[in-house]
Amino acid sequence: MTFPAVALIGGGQLARMLQQAAIPLGVRLQLLADRDDDSAAQVMRDVQVGDYRDLDTLRAVADGCAVMTFDHEHVPAEHLRALADSGVAVRPGPDALVHAQDKLAMRSRLTAAGIPCPRWRRIDDAASLAGFAAEAGGWPVVLKTARGGYDGKGVWLVESAAEAEPVLAGAAARGLELLAEERVDFARELAVVLARSPYGQVAVYPVVETVQTGGICREVLAPAPGLRAGRAVAAVQVAMAVAGELDCTGVLAVEMFETADGVLVNELAMRPHNSGHWTIDGAVTSQFEQHLRAVLDLPLGSPRARAPAAVMVNVLGGAETDVYRRYLHCMAGDPELKIHLYGKEVRPGRKIGHVTVMGNDYARLRVRAWHAADYLSGAIDG
Amino acid sequence: MTFPAVALIGGGQLARMLQQAAIPLGVRLQLLADRDDDSAAQVMRDVQVGDYRDLDTLRAVADGCAVMTFDHEHVPAEHLRALADSGVAVRPGPDALVHAQDKLAMRSRLTAAGIPCPRWRRIDDAASLAGFAAEAGGWPVVLKTARGGYDGKGVWLVESAAEAEPVLAGAAARGLELLAEERVDFARELAVVLARSPYGQVAVYPVVETVQTGGICREVLAPAPGLRAGRAVAAVQVAMAVAGELDCTGVLAVEMFETADGVLVNELAMRPHNSGHWTIDGAVTSQFEQHLRAVLDLPLGSPRARAPAAVMVNVLGGAETDVYRRYLHCMAGDPELKIHLYGKEVRPGRKIGHVTVMGNDYARLRVRAWHAADYLSGAIDG
Repeated sequence: MTFPAVALIGGGQLARMLQQAAIPLGVRLQLLADRDDDSAAQVMRDVQVGDYRDLDTLRAVADGCAVMTFDHEHVPAEHLRALADSGVAVRPGPDALVHAQDKLAMRSRLTAAGIPCPRWRRIDDAASLAGFAAEAGGWPVVLKTARGGYDGKGVWLVESAAEAEPVLAGAAARGLELLAEERVDFARELAVVLARSPYGQVAVYPVVETVQTGGICREVLAPAPGLRAGRAVAAVQVAMAVAGELDCTGVLAVEMFETADGVLVNELAMRPHNSGHWTIDGAVTSQFEQHLRAVLDLPLGSPRARAPAAVMVNVLGGAETDVYRRYLHCMAGDPELKIHLYGKEVRPGRKIGHVTVMGNDYARLRVRAWHAADYLSGAIDG
Repeated sequence: MTFPAVALIGGGQLARMLQQAAIPLGVRLQLLADRDDDSAAQVMRDVQVGDYRDLDTLRAVADGCAVMTFDHEHVPAEHLRALADSGVAVRPGPDALVHAQDKLAMRSRLTAAGIPCPRWRRIDDAASLAGFAAEAGGWPVVLKTARGGYDGKGVWLVESAAEAEPVLAGAAARGLELLAEERVDFARELAVVLARSPYGQVAVYPVVETVQTGGICREVLAPAPGLRAGRAVAAVQVAMAVAGELDCTGVLAVEMFETADGVLVNELAMRPHNSGHWTIDGAVTSQFEQHLRAVLDLPLGSPRARAPAAVMVNVLGGAETDVYRRYLHCMAGDPELKIHLYGKEVRPGRKIGHVTVMGNDYARLRVRAWHAADYLSGAIDG
């Protein structure tokens, strides 16, 4: 059988879960990992260890593959352009991916397209920040680096010009661009995960509620409980507008704020995303299978949920390092629990896995999922 | 994290699907394959290529692993005993596995335990066969080699003593033991897949109907349509009796004949089995995850079906070798179809994959699953 191979850049847990989806598809992944023992490198045959910032390394991984895709958005845009120019099918393409790499590019483009965003401004100095704060209704405001932030890193809630000073100075010293955003008075955070193929087919998963703590996603409720139908439609329309406007291929996750008036786009990711991990167990087609189908320009699978409700909770590294012992207890206590571990060394606060439960009743599902996640991490002992 | 590793002997599609289950469990598989491009060898990091009939090779694969398990039942029993004697946790153990390797051992043991089997006899010559035929109600009878048969190989339906003659001569020439069984007048074939852990926990999947053509499983309906509750209980009791009697660990599949009076055991497999492939998509815990949990003596997962009905159809190699082109068509036509391909070269009649669909209505599910399987193999063109 002559099935295509996919070059996959980055060896984190997303790449690991892509391998789980690639096996039944019969699609071979060719991985570029940072280290030989990266999460995904543990579970694949074709692993190259190297630097994703090196163009020749990227070319070597692409060799013999039908398409190149990504576990993260850190590959330099100029390399992606060089690869695309030399005939490598890069998906998502560099002109799309820049909007997941650079928040200034993202805000400019979405605003120009009329897609609802928080008020924002590029910040060059204390004066431009003070001007924005006045215009946006006063302090606090959110300062973000345009590039390189994730899981709450590169984001500061600043209460005053004085508090912003070290952030501005630090960014200037490191040559980082900054933007400011209004602090949105949101009811909750939502996310829409969809996939879009080069052919233009789009498949959208049910809108979910995400719960963040300290900038890190902790919990996803799918679908978002009690979401009004009109609001769900609005959220999906916004996500589809983003996908079309940016010509995305593969999975796109659009994180949003739900406010009294509607939804505002918070962040974008152009790869499988934590807010879609519930789909492995909870949807007919997982976001990982869907991403592979999309980047290969295969027809997309059904994004239908397989149960009325699913709850996913991330397992963060904690005091406990012998997770296996705790694993037994969780399995014994809840035979319907789906545990996903990423093969990562335990470090405090690091995402080392997630758990998913499905059923009807959010309250009971949340108790089960949180109990398992807290028990695995060592936060509780019984 | 110090998670256990599992030594896995045999690189076929069952091993490949075990890897799919091992990834979220965080369990590392260490594979012994016949060839570097075996189905499972394509999707794992730790692959040794060697001969499973060589004890030193087996020892090398077991090194550093918590347990050894199998994709097939062909590892010589004396090697399994030697490994067990030297402290390797072999699961299923040699004293159980012999009953999946040797049909004479299986029939003797089950008959002694009062587990319902077809009438059978060990056959040493034409006279013992003639005697059995007379006793079993006349010709035809089924002749089987005690060892080495699969997918209809090593099984003959013989209509007369004359027809049996070349089979007896061939077996004598090759030193093979034979047994004869009555041809059972069955309504249909059923299978019970269960898992049993060393601790003694058992989890049983719903009883399924299997449809064989030419000795090869083609289709599985889960649960078996229209099965009377009492009959389902009887089938489960028989399978649990087999598992307990033989002290099985891991997945056990018991293939049965359903007759007017009850069920009779046909064949055993002590590994994930084709009659359980539907569980990947259709049950809370797949048979592959369950097998790993069982051999690691982890608590077992829920075997509950996730939909009222599932239909699995095997994809056999046919005239078409460009399966990928046909893949697109199947995905486009049926977005809920779950396709599983094994990365195998297409050869006529070879199992190269399977498809599963889930829903409510067997008639419609069967049309969808058969259409996809026939289209993928090239048996139909639209």
